[in-house]
Amino acid sequence: MGALQFTITHKDPKSLARAGVLTVPHGVVETPAFIVVGTRASVKAVDPRDLKATGTQIALANTYHLMLRPGAEAVAEQEGLHNFMQWDGPMVTDSGGFQAFSLGFAIEHGVGKMLKMFPDEGKHDRDTKKQATPPRPKLAKITSDGILFHSHLDASKHMLTPERSIDIQEKLGADIILVLDECTSPLATYEYTRDSLELSHRWAERSFAAHKTDQALAGIVQGGAYKDLRDHAAKWNAAMPFDSFAIGGSLGKSKDDMWRILEWTNVILPENKPRHLLGIGGVDDVFGAVERGIDLFDCISPTRLARMGMVHLRPESGGTRANKWRFHLNGSTKAEKGPIDPACGCSTCTRFSRAYVHHLLRTGELLGYTLTSIHNLYFTNKLFEEIRAAIKTGTFESLKEKWMGK
Amino acid sequence: MGALQFTITHKDPKSLARAGVLTVPHGVVETPAFIVVGTRASVKAVDPRDLKATGTQIALANTYHLMLRPGAEAVAEQEGLHNFMQWDGPMVTDSGGFQAFSLGFAIEHGVGKMLKMFPDEGKHDRDTKKQATPPRPKLAKITSDGILFHSHLDASKHMLTPERSIDIQEKLGADIILVLDECTSPLATYEYTRDSLELSHRWAERSFAAHKTDQALAGIVQGGAYKDLRDHAAKWNAAMPFDSFAIGGSLGKSKDDMWRILEWTNVILPENKPRHLLGIGGVDDVFGAVERGIDLFDCISPTRLARMGMVHLRPESGGTRANKWRFHLNGSTKAEKGPIDPACGCSTCTRFSRAYVHHLLRTGELLGYTLTSIHNLYFTNKLFEEIRAAIKTGTFESLKEKWMGK
Repeated sequence: MGALQFTITHKDPKSLARAGVLTVPHGVVETPAFIVVGTRASVKAVDPRDLKATGTQIALANTYHLMLRPGAEAVAEQEGLHNFMQWDGPMVTDSGGFQAFSLGFAIEHGVGKMLKMFPDEGKHDRDTKKQATPPRPKLAKITSDGILFHSHLDASKHMLTPERSIDIQEKLGADIILVLDECTSPLATYEYTRDSLELSHRWAERSFAAHKTDQALAGIVQGGAYKDLRDHAAKWNAAMPFDSFAIGGSLGKSKDDMWRILEWTNVILPENKPRHLLGIGGVDDVFGAVERGIDLFDCISPTRLARMGMVHLRPESGGTRANKWRFHLNGSTKAEKGPIDPACGCSTCTRFSRAYVHHLLRTGELLGYTLTSIHNLYFTNKLFEEIRAAIKTGTFESLKEKWMGK
Repeated sequence: MGALQFTITHKDPKSLARAGVLTVPHGVVETPAFIVVGTRASVKAVDPRDLKATGTQIALANTYHLMLRPGAEAVAEQEGLHNFMQWDGPMVTDSGGFQAFSLGFAIEHGVGKMLKMFPDEGKHDRDTKKQATPPRPKLAKITSDGILFHSHLDASKHMLTPERSIDIQEKLGADIILVLDECTSPLATYEYTRDSLELSHRWAERSFAAHKTDQALAGIVQGGAYKDLRDHAAKWNAAMPFDSFAIGGSLGKSKDDMWRILEWTNVILPENKPRHLLGIGGVDDVFGAVERGIDLFDCISPTRLARMGMVHLRPESGGTRANKWRFHLNGSTKAEKGPIDPACGCSTCTRFSRAYVHHLLRTGELLGYTLTSIHNLYFTNKLFEEIRAAIKTGTFESLKEKWMGK
């Protein structure tokens, strides 16, 4: 058992939503919580000193990317990720399993974790465009022993076995590490997904056996959109002495599929351990997943959208489900004196006008990416803060209605 | 007369170096001082909130660039540059005259303000490479009425007259503004430079006549490397009721030429007004110019070098004239646990290792540019702080020897 304590302090009477306190060696995380993504040991364009003021409690970095650059040994020589990147709060590392999908099947077939991740995206959403790019040769191959990567940087070969993933994650030194798994595609057949699940469970056992530190170890529930496979995966994981659980893999062909998957899984997973929904963090997804019992979310969207000039807007300022609680800082906002969001308390909105941030983005000034990233992270963390408060005061349903509409 | 007070508090007994206090509406600048460059109303990659901690006292922005984007009227609608970019300290705007050179003769002939700005540059110095690029068609043309620019962005035509430059600078609202001038090339003949000087003086008179606010107005001394022209220009400017003086134009073919030009000029300019050497800021240039009576310097080098991974090093840490007080964060530093400069007190060096900053630059993480820029600005401002202290304590010569060697 790793160094992780999780206490559920409040439960929503009308859903599976719960508020809790997660304690790990580097600090305390109030849940439900957003995990900020710093893939290569940096939250893009944001000084770690400024992360806390955005409400960030916990950060995630990436085994595959750090294995390539600067290398796990290099990070270990700098006394681990916390010291290397100067983030002293709680951290998670993922295992590299997702990159086997994102650099393998996903680029070969041009799909995301859901077949249509963003069915109603507007023209500014490059994620959608990315998924629509023609298939390319895959850079990752699954073998029974592990994942054979061809580096996206120089095509060098890297075999990531469960043992190597754990060894790397131990060298990186995050508070919570993940077992190596295969993340299946929404296009995978039942038979492929079933066989893959057995492979993931063998890898999870090997990950568990290889793990030697007191870092918390999280199992990952796979099984695609197939009920019997998700049930089996949830039961198998529940029977393992993992400190925490993640839910990964294909989340189906629609949001309804995702909701069903969460409902199947979360009635089986032990109630008293944290549940992390991997790679999801949109406002509507967060409400839907929290009320189905999810505690932790990580997502690159807030920072990626920020660098594209897509900035979040709270409901008080006109953010709705229809506009996805955001707008594009473009020519139409270039003369606006007000902040990005007048209802926002972030260090961007309390200082700068829309006109100035637009000017920075238009002229390619790097500060623009920093200011929008800080805003979007503050927005996201504030959403979670409100969700926690609502669960504690029994007002989750009305908070959801405020954000999502009726 | 504009709102500017300048008091010389200390004089070096062995040179023309002086320490003083410059007071303008947005604050006090202790001189000699470095003026940080924020061409497009942003010091590249640095949050203005973090500038003060680098010791920055005063910032400069650019009339030509801001005229194109977002436009002077757009900045005026945001209540001026200070509010727009959220820098509440003293500011200067240049007049656009230098861009007539940099976008005109300089790109046509491939030269800088000095014929060989960086005679001993190493291979990492892109400034040198830039000057070695083949000549291109010029984007600015001098007429008797003003400068006709073809925008470097979209080739649209913009006529910058002295009156328009002053109008723009009044809309931008810096504490100190500059007359429009023609910045001559080191390749210009005596005849061209003489005629250009007369044109600059006519433009200066028109700038003066057009100026309506209480912003301080600085004259600019031109005249190339010709003694009689510099003498004439210094006398002409000295006789005008300018609040401050800048020294611009060609600084000759070598550093010795630059020293001579400063010596000719500064014995003529009134002692009790500030003197700004435009666009110069290297360590050796600063020592040489301060001891010849210069008070203010602006230079893009600290931030531009930073973005190239060239970081400054103090003498205590091995910075010398030979290595130009800097080194390149490259593969050879990728495993180094220590800070960029162990003798530096900046927020980069007190937190991050060379290995981490190298990792950020190598992977293209934007935070890398921020961290190196903060370091180089702190280094530069600290140099000026030490120079001020040395002038006050009569130890300028020994400080110079510490930095420059014997």
